[in-house]
Formats: sequence, C-alpha cells, structure tokens
Amino acid sequence: MTNIINHQVRLAGRPEGLPKSSDWEFTETEVPDLQDGQVLVKIHYISVDPAMRGWMNDRDTYVPALKLGDVMRALTVGEVMASENPAFAMGDFVAGFDGVQEYAISDGSALMKADTNLAPLSAYLNSLGIAGLTAYCGLIEVGTPKAGETVVVSGAAGSVGSHVGQIAKIKGCRTVGIAGGARKCAFLIDELGFDAVIDYKNEALDAGLARTCPDGIDCYFDNVGGPISDAAFDNMAMWARVAICGQIAQYNDTEQAMGPRNLRNFLIKRATLYGLLVFDWRDRYHEGRARLTQWVQEGRIKYREDVVEGLENAPSAFAGLMEGKNFGKQLVRIDADTSR
Amino acid sequence: MTNIINHQVRLAGRPEGLPKSSDWEFTETEVPDLQDGQVLVKIHYISVDPAMRGWMNDRDTYVPALKLGDVMRALTVGEVMASENPAFAMGDFVAGFDGVQEYAISDGSALMKADTNLAPLSAYLNSLGIAGLTAYCGLIEVGTPKAGETVVVSGAAGSVGSHVGQIAKIKGCRTVGIAGGARKCAFLIDELGFDAVIDYKNEALDAGLARTCPDGIDCYFDNVGGPISDAAFDNMAMWARVAICGQIAQYNDTEQAMGPRNLRNFLIKRATLYGLLVFDWRDRYHEGRARLTQWVQEGRIKYREDVVEGLENAPSAFAGLMEGKNFGKQLVRIDADTSR
Repeated sequence: MTNIINHQVRLAGRPEGLPKSSDWEFTETEVPDLQDGQVLVKIHYISVDPAMRGWMNDRDTYVPALKLGDVMRALTVGEVMASENPAFAMGDFVAGFDGVQEYAISDGSALMKADTNLAPLSAYLNSLGIAGLTAYCGLIEVGTPKAGETVVVSGAAGSVGSHVGQIAKIKGCRTVGIAGGARKCAFLIDELGFDAVIDYKNEALDAGLARTCPDGIDCYFDNVGGPISDAAFDNMAMWARVAICGQIAQYNDTEQAMGPRNLRNFLIKRATLYGLLVFDWRDRYHEGRARLTQWVQEGRIKYREDVVEGLENAPSAFAGLMEGKNFGKQLVRIDADTSR
Repeated sequence: MTNIINHQVRLAGRPEGLPKSSDWEFTETEVPDLQDGQVLVKIHYISVDPAMRGWMNDRDTYVPALKLGDVMRALTVGEVMASENPAFAMGDFVAGFDGVQEYAISDGSALMKADTNLAPLSAYLNSLGIAGLTAYCGLIEVGTPKAGETVVVSGAAGSVGSHVGQIAKIKGCRTVGIAGGARKCAFLIDELGFDAVIDYKNEALDAGLARTCPDGIDCYFDNVGGPISDAAFDNMAMWARVAICGQIAQYNDTEQAMGPRNLRNFLIKRATLYGLLVFDWRDRYHEGRARLTQWVQEGRIKYREDVVEGLENAPSAFAGLMEGKNFGKQLVRIDADTSR
C-alpha cells in the first residue's frame, strides 16, 4: 500500500461571485502510512452540492470556513483499501465527508457503511445520503405535512427537492415543484409523479402559484430563496410552514441582494419559518435511511444522476451546478487506478 | 335612555402612506333602542394601536378590511349603560372591540368584564388588555425564553414591547430594548428595569447589538420590522426564536419596501420565525390576565399611558403614534356627557 499518489482539488482563492478556475489548485501528495485507528478510503464518487459555495467563503457558517490550501470539503462514497480501525475492513463501502480527492485517510468517526446490496454505491450520495435525509428529516419534522395539504418545493429537480416532492406524495400531499426549464418540469411530472409544476423560466411565479395552489401553500420547502420565495410567501395558506434548506439564489452574490420586506405575511397567516440543517437530525438518520431504502426498492422514490468523469472536472461540474445546468444529482466519478 | 346622540369617527378614505384628515369622517347618530340580548356601552377610553393602519387598507388581513363609512375599528373600555343581556348589568365595566365612538351596542360576545377593583379601567387596554396578553402569550409561547437567555424587543417603549421586556425580566432573562430617543431609553432602564437599551436614533444597530448582546440574541420579539430586524437577524444566537408581532416600519409604505435578503441567517443559526397574533391564544387569556394582574399589583409590571382627551383628537393621536411621538400606551379618553 505504499507509494500511492493522491490527487486533490484544493481551495486556492476566495471566490467573488461564481468560482473561477484560479480559485482551485490541483495537487498530488503521497498517501502516508496509516496510524492506529485510521482507515484509507479510495473515493469512487464525489457529491457536488450548492452548499460548497458557502464553505469557500472566509466565514464560518454551520461548519468552519475552509482555509486556503485545504482540500475542498465534499461528501464522498468509496471503498476501504486498508484499515487499522476494527470497525472497518478492507472492501467495505463507506460514505463520508472526505473531500475532492482520490484517497482519504479517516479516523472512521464520520464514515458510514454503505450496503451496495441494497442500492448502488452512488445512491448513498443521493436518496440514501444527505440529500435524501435532508428531504426526509426536513419535510417530516419541519414541514410537518398532513395528507391533503399542498407542499411546494423550490429547486424541485435538484437532489433534495426531488426527494421532498416524492416523500410529500408518499405522505398524501398535493405536490407542486418549481424548476427551470421544460425538461426538468416534464421529468417531475412524468417520472417523479409531482401533481403540478411551475417552470419559473416560462411562467410568472405569482400566476403559477395561483394556478397550482388555489388554496394556498401549506408547506414551502425552500432550496433557492430570492424571488421564488417572495412569491411563495405571498401565497401561503393559514398556518403555513416554511423550511429554509438552501438559498442558492444568494450564494454567489457579491453585494447584498435586496428583496421585498414581506415578513408581515407571516403575521397575517401565522406562518412559521425554520432554518433547516440535516446534521441536527442525526438521531433520525437510521430511521430515515431505512424508510428511504424501502421506498427506493419499491420504486416509490426515483432518483436521477448527472455524472461527470474525472477529478479534474470537479470545478466545472460545480460551476455548472451553480448555474442550474445539471439535470439530476451532480456527481463526479473518479477512477484512481491510473494514479497508483 | 332615548335620544342619546352618538359621535363617531368613520373611515372616509383609503390612506396612501400616513393617514390624513380627509381619510376620516365625523358623524353623529342617535343610539337605537336595545334589542333582546344587546348591551349598550358608554366608551371611556379608546386604544390607539399601530394595527389600525392595516385595518384601513382595502385588503383583508387577519380581520376583514373595513368598508368605507364603517366606524373605525378599535379596542375600547367602557361602562354598561343598559342591558338586555343577562350576562351584563348596568354599571358593569367592560373591555371590547367597540370602535372609535362614544357609545356602542353589542351582543356581548366580544365583551369582557373589567374589574376596576384590581386595576384602573384603562389598564384593561394595556397591561391587562390585548397589549399585555400579546406580550404574555407571544413571549411565553412563541419566544419560549429560558432564564439566562438574551431577549431583545423592538418598539420596546410601546405598549406591547414594554410588557415583553418586563415579562422577560420576570422570567430571568437578560432584557435588551430597542427604542427611539433618550427619554424612552431612560424610562426602559430606570423605570422598567431593562438590562440594556439601544437608542436607534443615536447608535448604529449592529454596534448596539454587538455591545448589548455579545453572545447573540436568543429571542427577538419584533414589533417594528425594517432595518431594526435586519440587524437583529444578523446577530442571532444558535436556535434563536423570532416572534413577528408587528411591522410598523412597513405599515405606511406606499410602495414595496426593499431590504436585504437575509434568510440564510436562519439556516446558519437554525433559527425559527413565527407570525404571532394574540387572538390565537384566547384559551390562555384567563391565565395570562391573572398573572399580569398579580404582577401589576406587585409592582413588577409598570405601565405608562399617553392620554389624549376627546374623540375629535383620535385621528391626530393615531398619526402621532405612527410617527413614534407617543410615550406610553396611546389612549383617547372621551367624555360623552356633553353630547347627551
């Protein structure tokens, strides 16, 4: 196991607006010998997520800010190549937070075993990973949907949004997705079983919400923020719940974005808005993953992947995600064989 | 009881921005004979509240919009002059929603008896009325303050805000008030026992919050909205709760006010925002009023009144309230004796 070369993508600059190529640095280092308790993971897939944009700033959020020169933080799945940790054996598949690189050494504390008999490995970055769990925990616990209610989700064709809509449907809700473009919208209706969609690139949001939510929105699951949320707040039903899961519309702002002051809607409708972070629901992961696994196996939850090949293409995949160019969960598949 | 003349202030126009005199109409009508089940109330005090501004618009909110020509809606206290309702007797003091007028006929369903042995009648429009109950129910149920936490209230010298701060203090919290002007701020510290104040007319809000809330805001009770709320949202502690009780900064807007898009703060801090309307907590009024009465009698809750004399001055009292000119709960005292 000696002389393994690890290729990495590191944070080289603090982006202003959309990240550019000079914000990234490609490095190679030799994988050191394992210490007692450590696990060597060969990464197969890297998850590309909007949240990465926030991690690149020089400001702690719900996780510490990355330092310049750090390997870019990312969710990953891979295979255990060597283990000095009794909890993991060579050949185990694991999901972790191992970054944009080919190999990672971990103390195992953040690794979770992935059972590839239940679903393909990449599903552990999607339906059975943080995306699915965010949708599950967030919708069930924060959105508290009741059968017959209307659930609206923004970023509906994204990895979290597509799961929110499908779980809401399983819970007996009317499900309305907001997404950009005819292809994504058709996918939501035809493949995922949404009841209605609003293509925000082709329909005014207020008109779309009036058309699809004549009785108002009971639960709004927000991945996007910005004008889409403004319209949602203007169309809430009494006692509406809003889960703020992501605000991708703001992530690349270089100056403070402005929007209408509309919090009075919350008073009039006695609505509630919650900031949602899946890590707060760790004690529900086991339950959530069991349900999601069952639903995937029953075909009640479907997922779509947008896979880019090669570590060197991770930055462009991320840039595409920021512009909504992906169609399905954005993944980078890496094959480290050639670099051994 | 015949030939009683009732003077009234009616809504004559839909104001744009601050209400002006032409938006009001003064009328006099003869009080009709009572029907079975009805009560005749002679009004002593009228409560002047920011919420009245919203009621003047041609748009239903949590109550139906007033029609042009309607007597202006207002909270009132008065004395029963005649009763065809077995629940009320002549001489009873009552609080109700009887409008800006000298006399009101009511079916009694919205009347609550006021015990003037416990507190002066006007207190039933303040500490023992909707203001006190809004503070009590909103802070306890929505703000959920725990001893040692930091509670920030905007509009702190107002009728609701001053009660929020005092109740938070009783609950063992650090209490920070935001108010405009040295006189109001001194009152909060010297008379009401707030731990700290920010005079938004003389100190930058971010600096003021950093100074007074070094560990962040655990509970923000918002009567105001606008830039004060922006600063509060930027200074929340983890798991912060925000109660949206009023948004007076927006009530006179003639075009959509804009502000920073800052909901990502709620995600980062896993904060929660609730729209609060006291009418949802009717089943807690009895408890709340009992506690508030006790605290007033013990001197742990103090209140201040700003009393204007005469029905004809109600519009100008309301205009002053909108501009923050009142100091204490704004009331109009009327004496209908001269108009019989």
